[in-house]
Amino acid sequence: MTSPQGKLILMPNTLDFGVAGDADLQDVLPLGVIRTAARLTHWVAENAKTTRAFLKRVDAIVPLAQPLQALSIIELPRPAKGARQLAMPDLKPLLQPALQGHDIGLISEAGLPAVADPGAALVQAAHAMKIEVAVLPGPSSLLLALAASGLNGQSFAFVGYLPIDAAERSQRIRELEALSKRSSQTQLMIETPYRNEPLLAALLANLRADTLLSVSCGLTLPQAWTRTGPVADWKAAPTRMPADIPAVFSLLAH
Amino acid sequence: MTSPQGKLILMPNTLDFGVAGDADLQDVLPLGVIRTAARLTHWVAENAKTTRAFLKRVDAIVPLAQPLQALSIIELPRPAKGARQLAMPDLKPLLQPALQGHDIGLISEAGLPAVADPGAALVQAAHAMKIEVAVLPGPSSLLLALAASGLNGQSFAFVGYLPIDAAERSQRIRELEALSKRSSQTQLMIETPYRNEPLLAALLANLRADTLLSVSCGLTLPQAWTRTGPVADWKAAPTRMPADIPAVFSLLAH
Repeated sequence: MTSPQGKLILMPNTLDFGVAGDADLQDVLPLGVIRTAARLTHWVAENAKTTRAFLKRVDAIVPLAQPLQALSIIELPRPAKGARQLAMPDLKPLLQPALQGHDIGLISEAGLPAVADPGAALVQAAHAMKIEVAVLPGPSSLLLALAASGLNGQSFAFVGYLPIDAAERSQRIRELEALSKRSSQTQLMIETPYRNEPLLAALLANLRADTLLSVSCGLTLPQAWTRTGPVADWKAAPTRMPADIPAVFSLLAH
Repeated sequence: MTSPQGKLILMPNTLDFGVAGDADLQDVLPLGVIRTAARLTHWVAENAKTTRAFLKRVDAIVPLAQPLQALSIIELPRPAKGARQLAMPDLKPLLQPALQGHDIGLISEAGLPAVADPGAALVQAAHAMKIEVAVLPGPSSLLLALAASGLNGQSFAFVGYLPIDAAERSQRIRELEALSKRSSQTQLMIETPYRNEPLLAALLANLRADTLLSVSCGLTLPQAWTRTGPVADWKAAPTRMPADIPAVFSLLAH
């Protein structure tokens, strides 16, 4: 008789990148999820250091099944910047513990793994190996921003990052506006925090006055805010974007 | 001096539609969120009955600030079926309590309000009235399904329900496949549970053999599962869809 196979468990992380170190994990993660995190002994992580910080916060609520130092925490291989065309490394060895009966946690630096974050290739490899994939509920900045925006939640798309080059970015913004108008589809995008301000400026410069623009900043943090309104209103009363807090931008044209 | 204005607080609900009545709310909702639910005295709800059932589960963990019967729970007006073109009723009266300093909870039957669910118009009205909108983290079947699928989480779209008419549905499936291929964008859709099986059959009949198809069923419930693989594999080893549990379908063509 063989021992039962372990699962790949997608573990949500907080959205505070550990900066709100004293914030209560129980404000954003269900106790059941924290309990599961405490019992896992095998992890695949976007970042081992932030995973250890996360597990210390877990340990303060539910003691870890094994000391932190005894846990296996392996980082996901990162493709080199700009190396999107290269073949991905073979991820199957990372899933070996599941074949030996251990559940494996997959965790990223913030939010849900494999959504606007690395990890999808590992999840696909698990499916290909017939390893059960389970996912636990937790904060996702994209969906929280969409809900808080009041824009169309029946049809929406997340398009990732816009081009950095100003001319290409302007063109992409106008493309997304046309697409949104044609299909009444909310278009969501993100940016590295220090480019929040230039992205907002580019959106205001290129969108039509009556297109609805929403920005959510620092969701789940004490300083969280969401603003939604026509581009004309944003221009009439500008909002200063923080350069150190992640934001989600969304638009709906009509 | 005027009293401070209340907020509109988007409150996540469980994904079990109350059927797992004895399941621990703390498996899926953070304690901080449950505490906020317990203190709110004003609610706008997709469904008042399921909201009372939710609040009973909250009360078992954190006692409600006021007895259930004393809470104000007002249902969102529903547009009549097929009446999408009609002007929405004026939602501002529903937000009146916020102007008097009361926080208002917005809650749907399952998951996050205003995402694949009613409520977005109320959120937009709040923004227009300069009422602060806050959103609390909780389960969202769409994002959990996307994470568990292993399909592209850097670019994805939720397209809602497909047409019921067989010919229109086939055409829409082929359109979504072409769109997914063109932009490497994962396309997510949902269906009323009793149409899960016909939708899966239509997807298998219309998609190319090498398109990746993922189905997640009953996420966060004990019987949750996710299967991902090429259409050819789904055809070779069929999966029977339950007719009473919500599912999320997603595809990625390449």
